[in-house]
Amino acid sequence: MIKERTSKPTEKMLKEAAKGEPLSGEELAAGLKQGTIIILGNTLRAGKVRPTAVGKGTRTKVNANFGTSRDASGIKEERKKIQIAIEAGADTVMDLSTGKDIEQTLKMSLEESSVPVGTVPIYGLAARALAKGCKFDDISEEDFIDSVIAHCELGVDFITVHSGLTLEGVRHLENEGRVTGIVSRGGSFLHRWMRFTGKENPLYTYYDEILKVAGKYNVALSLGDGLRPGSIADATDRCQTTELLILGELVDRARSVGVQAMVEGPGHVPLDQIRLNIQMQKEICKGAPFYVLGPLVTDIAAGYDHITAAIGGAIAAAAGADFLCYVTPAEHLRLPTVEDVHIGVIAMRIAAHAADVAKGLPGAADWDLKMSKARKKLNWEKMYSLSIDPTLARKLRGSRRPRDENFCSMCSELCALKD
Amino acid sequence: MIKERTSKPTEKMLKEAAKGEPLSGEELAAGLKQGTIIILGNTLRAGKVRPTAVGKGTRTKVNANFGTSRDASGIKEERKKIQIAIEAGADTVMDLSTGKDIEQTLKMSLEESSVPVGTVPIYGLAARALAKGCKFDDISEEDFIDSVIAHCELGVDFITVHSGLTLEGVRHLENEGRVTGIVSRGGSFLHRWMRFTGKENPLYTYYDEILKVAGKYNVALSLGDGLRPGSIADATDRCQTTELLILGELVDRARSVGVQAMVEGPGHVPLDQIRLNIQMQKEICKGAPFYVLGPLVTDIAAGYDHITAAIGGAIAAAAGADFLCYVTPAEHLRLPTVEDVHIGVIAMRIAAHAADVAKGLPGAADWDLKMSKARKKLNWEKMYSLSIDPTLARKLRGSRRPRDENFCSMCSELCALKD
Repeated sequence: MIKERTSKPTEKMLKEAAKGEPLSGEELAAGLKQGTIIILGNTLRAGKVRPTAVGKGTRTKVNANFGTSRDASGIKEERKKIQIAIEAGADTVMDLSTGKDIEQTLKMSLEESSVPVGTVPIYGLAARALAKGCKFDDISEEDFIDSVIAHCELGVDFITVHSGLTLEGVRHLENEGRVTGIVSRGGSFLHRWMRFTGKENPLYTYYDEILKVAGKYNVALSLGDGLRPGSIADATDRCQTTELLILGELVDRARSVGVQAMVEGPGHVPLDQIRLNIQMQKEICKGAPFYVLGPLVTDIAAGYDHITAAIGGAIAAAAGADFLCYVTPAEHLRLPTVEDVHIGVIAMRIAAHAADVAKGLPGAADWDLKMSKARKKLNWEKMYSLSIDPTLARKLRGSRRPRDENFCSMCSELCALKD
Repeated sequence: MIKERTSKPTEKMLKEAAKGEPLSGEELAAGLKQGTIIILGNTLRAGKVRPTAVGKGTRTKVNANFGTSRDASGIKEERKKIQIAIEAGADTVMDLSTGKDIEQTLKMSLEESSVPVGTVPIYGLAARALAKGCKFDDISEEDFIDSVIAHCELGVDFITVHSGLTLEGVRHLENEGRVTGIVSRGGSFLHRWMRFTGKENPLYTYYDEILKVAGKYNVALSLGDGLRPGSIADATDRCQTTELLILGELVDRARSVGVQAMVEGPGHVPLDQIRLNIQMQKEICKGAPFYVLGPLVTDIAAGYDHITAAIGGAIAAAAGADFLCYVTPAEHLRLPTVEDVHIGVIAMRIAAHAADVAKGLPGAADWDLKMSKARKKLNWEKMYSLSIDPTLARKLRGSRRPRDENFCSMCSELCALKD
């Protein structure tokens, strides 16, 4: 009954998505059929968005979040962030606006972005509730589903739905106890609404409705982890795991009606539990693409969380995570600036590439080989052009010029490479 | 015959070294006896240097390199780097000067630094050879040993000696071929001297002389890896492994006369080969402390190599590496600035701490727990003070002030933590 009008990625989309991948269009189609690969691209944005494959055997992808908050930024700055993120090599962007002009910001994003755009549709509801002084009584179950429908119809390419946060997960949350409770913005809003109304999560109850509209426009579901750990002490606990089990169920249901789904993952996770988390997701969610936030391997480095996330992201992707959400130096401290966005994307791209090399992704290490050959020849122009951030590489070397232009100011003529 | 006057770490040094460690003085003494732990501190600097334990069961340590090059910097800037490195939490520093005033810079370092100071004694010879137009004919075998003796007698706490770079390693280097050849400054200088003279490495031939003077002043030997890979393509090859075998032999010889020794390791290593490298070193060198440079998990990120090194360092330390040499954003591009030193130390401390948490080092995760409890309470002053870089954390949050001082400008009143 659900699948009245299901759009699937077209041949053309598959072909485009295969560019820059070690897989052919046919191989992508096979993964798509199994559900181990998804292709991002709302049919309403056909021709505007670069169809992007996420999943098994594809290059590890990197997402950059942006968006206003109540306290800071506006459409102009957010447009700049999209541009900078794409320039720096982000594969997707997510508009997480919760400030004023939410709808206008999203429309601008969909116009501006050549890469897939994701959102968390219920943020609009949360902002509305906040504006009214945290009133939940005028937010109905229908409002949740309507927010999802609205974003699909606007052309959003993938949406986070926290459909796995159920009353059973909340029971574990309360019963086990946590250091940092809920740290997901969407998860916390849902939890408050559930507590206020005593009802089950409408994104779970009416999941079929979500599948219907997602299928209609080829919107990929990003099954959110509202109960992700916000401190390493909370990692891999009962409430996180309960939610993961529901996410596995929701993957099955999406697949059964031909809707694309991936799963979101933590969060704050100590280094030695990262592989475990990836393996659990891959088993429980039957190989669905895994989209992780970091993970952050320690809680103590606010200001440097692009680094804690790059450590965790590299390990996660090498262990099988498919899609890394960047974390900027601003995390835990402020709304990111344009420069934060730039650094965040580069740091996570380093992690993604290091993981692709480690996994033996065909062709991944060619980039390193070209760079190292140029380095051995002391061919600086080639080294700049092969650097992940050519502008910065040129700037740093230029800022302390060597006397002999063949070298750099670190070792000067003692450069070992001329050996 | 060698051990005419061997100094050992005193009871007092062990007691001081145990501060901030999960091990007691007695446990340190046991590790010291087995050779799995060393205590850095030249007897000539007793009272001036903080005795520092490196090895099994101790907190992962971080070293910061500094030093002039021919092209840049001077004593004043290098003094500032030492101060900044120690403030940022470096456990040791290494003076790698190759510019003018080498001896004065080292004397300043030994005066300035409250933490152990390391050097590569042969750099002075290399700089002298360079100043004379890369002439090797007036550098004798005795000169190599004399450079080592001079540094031990000046009070240096640990010295890198590339005694494992032998003619057999060079044979493999030439025979197997490499993308980036030799990238170690000391290794490349030795190699050129060996090629010029046709002689075996004097640091190997006269290793007993080195042991004699090191033992006299409780100088720890850092057995250098002159053949470390300089690109991920070269990682774990025959010449690197040949050198590691010799380093294992040299550890045995040092232990047999009661001289403290650790082993230096790579370098550029793909993520999936890091654990292998640590396990190989631990087996071949019979549990000797392992001091690694990074490792860098990709070659393509000049300008961000503090991040590539933090990824590799965290994985290496979690797998058993004991001591991480920082890498700054300047690596491959310029002599580091004071700010580069600061960022480099913080990035590697994040890696070291994440690894200590992962290894389950007693007490390591307490820091994270305190931070996360403060975060849950939205206690910003406490969060700042617990941050790895309190000044930066305060600055970032302050730069985009929230309207409501309880939160930050990222989520403002939608902060999930108030759930």
